[in-house]
Amino acid sequence: MKVLIVFAHPEPRSLNGALLDVAIRELKRLGHDVQVSDLYAQRWKSEVDRADFPSLAHAERLQPAAASKQAFEAGTLTGDVKAEITKLLWADVLILQFPLWWFSMPAILKGWVDRVFAYGFAYGVGEHSDKRWGDRYGDGTLKGKRAMLVVTAGGWEEHYSDRGVNGPIDDLLFPINHGILYYPGYDVLPPFVVYRVDRLDDPGFGPVAEGLRERMRSLATTTPIPYRRQNGGDYLIPSMQLRAGLEEPGASGFALHLDRAGDCGHDGKPHRLGSSMVIRIDGDLPPNGLLEVGNNPLA
Amino acid sequence: MKVLIVFAHPEPRSLNGALLDVAIRELKRLGHDVQVSDLYAQRWKSEVDRADFPSLAHAERLQPAAASKQAFEAGTLTGDVKAEITKLLWADVLILQFPLWWFSMPAILKGWVDRVFAYGFAYGVGEHSDKRWGDRYGDGTLKGKRAMLVVTAGGWEEHYSDRGVNGPIDDLLFPINHGILYYPGYDVLPPFVVYRVDRLDDPGFGPVAEGLRERMRSLATTTPIPYRRQNGGDYLIPSMQLRAGLEEPGASGFALHLDRAGDCGHDGKPHRLGSSMVIRIDGDLPPNGLLEVGNNPLA
Repeated sequence: MKVLIVFAHPEPRSLNGALLDVAIRELKRLGHDVQVSDLYAQRWKSEVDRADFPSLAHAERLQPAAASKQAFEAGTLTGDVKAEITKLLWADVLILQFPLWWFSMPAILKGWVDRVFAYGFAYGVGEHSDKRWGDRYGDGTLKGKRAMLVVTAGGWEEHYSDRGVNGPIDDLLFPINHGILYYPGYDVLPPFVVYRVDRLDDPGFGPVAEGLRERMRSLATTTPIPYRRQNGGDYLIPSMQLRAGLEEPGASGFALHLDRAGDCGHDGKPHRLGSSMVIRIDGDLPPNGLLEVGNNPLA
Repeated sequence: MKVLIVFAHPEPRSLNGALLDVAIRELKRLGHDVQVSDLYAQRWKSEVDRADFPSLAHAERLQPAAASKQAFEAGTLTGDVKAEITKLLWADVLILQFPLWWFSMPAILKGWVDRVFAYGFAYGVGEHSDKRWGDRYGDGTLKGKRAMLVVTAGGWEEHYSDRGVNGPIDDLLFPINHGILYYPGYDVLPPFVVYRVDRLDDPGFGPVAEGLRERMRSLATTTPIPYRRQNGGDYLIPSMQLRAGLEEPGASGFALHLDRAGDCGHDGKPHRLGSSMVIRIDGDLPPNGLLEVGNNPLA
């Protein structure tokens, strides 16, 4: 398989850097082709602005979506964006790896999404009418490919649990997993999440690395999160609301969009609930959920 | 009152730019002091990197949280970050205004949060022990101040409703409202959300502008979203899980962290559910949920 890892940590000598090395080594050992977009190393430009659309006339108002559409169709997107699109089309599997900062991705990775996921490529794809609302949420340019998140968090697993004060990790990641990855067609695998990374020491690193290696070995076989396909009949058109009665009794919020019933997805495989893989580190209280690796000598 | 608006749209001649003008004019008419951080105009740097910590030794590993703590305590944060912190301490009300891109804020605004919300200022504040897990979620440096979001979205309101395919807007904004604003102590007002902005025309702009003016007039009196205070007794320590039985029957996910029971918050006022203010524009189908203003001549 071909695997693209988009990496968003400013320090190679971090836990994230060490985990990136682990993933690359395991993927290559398995015979896969690997490319890495190391956003900090590439000095990735985070902001959508006029410089992204060199063919936009000086006096013309910048409308980001319209400009993106026009530039994608005309082939005038900037070189850095085109290179990432080429990688996305090449890869069978996309991995986004990042530290959880303020319950989301670092700005540089959000800027990668904002700029690379162009109109006509990742959105604005397919027929839009009163019968069909585009190819998205399970359809789209990247359909047939798989994606997953590799995330490090400073906080405790309990704080991200169903009743934890931060909110459940699967809900916090829903805008990314569903809104960014499932939207253009990816089958989204459950995320690999490492908690309490500020207290992760050398002995603690081994099990985490092995957990990540196992996820690399099972990229092709892991059951995706069973999000409901927009165009699979579960949603009313054009209101795009879930039809009454499809959800599990008592389900609400983001959970409505999971098909936990065990019926089959478009790959013909039965679905299970996609929940995060949990890696837990013992240690002292971290001051908050935002710390990166503390006093450990990971290189 | 003193109001800080952090504005994150690359085009002043956009709906966002027009709404910014509306808000500023109304606030000044009411006699308030207004400052604006126009992130694109300021050429805001989005990425947390070594350049943020000039006192970090060249050979030293960058640990973002540790470096942030050290720089905040030593007063060596960069000038642009210090200026924003000064504004936050000055303002009674913080408004974040942005177009919803990929179900979250544009990268430049995320980068403002990542860099300005320093350790010791916005997190890592207060006692951390087995009795108390810091001053956060209702306590913290910014306690006593108010914050709200002004958001534009291309998609239909129905797509962001309780059963809509995108997920409910209040859940999509939870990582921002709860995780970024409530965390350092703000009372968070219900967001002002404008839908289908790509089809917003001149006649449609009037009601939207008036809705925003009304929200500016009621900044001091609007009831905040009734998030539960972490240190108010509702959560177990140190697991920070909501105590059993406090939630409404059937509530799950982010909704657990709302106290809808009508009891009193720390301001002594009864709480109600904080839901988005809805502005709906009639018109044709937009191709997706990501468009900015279309063919309208708003200046």
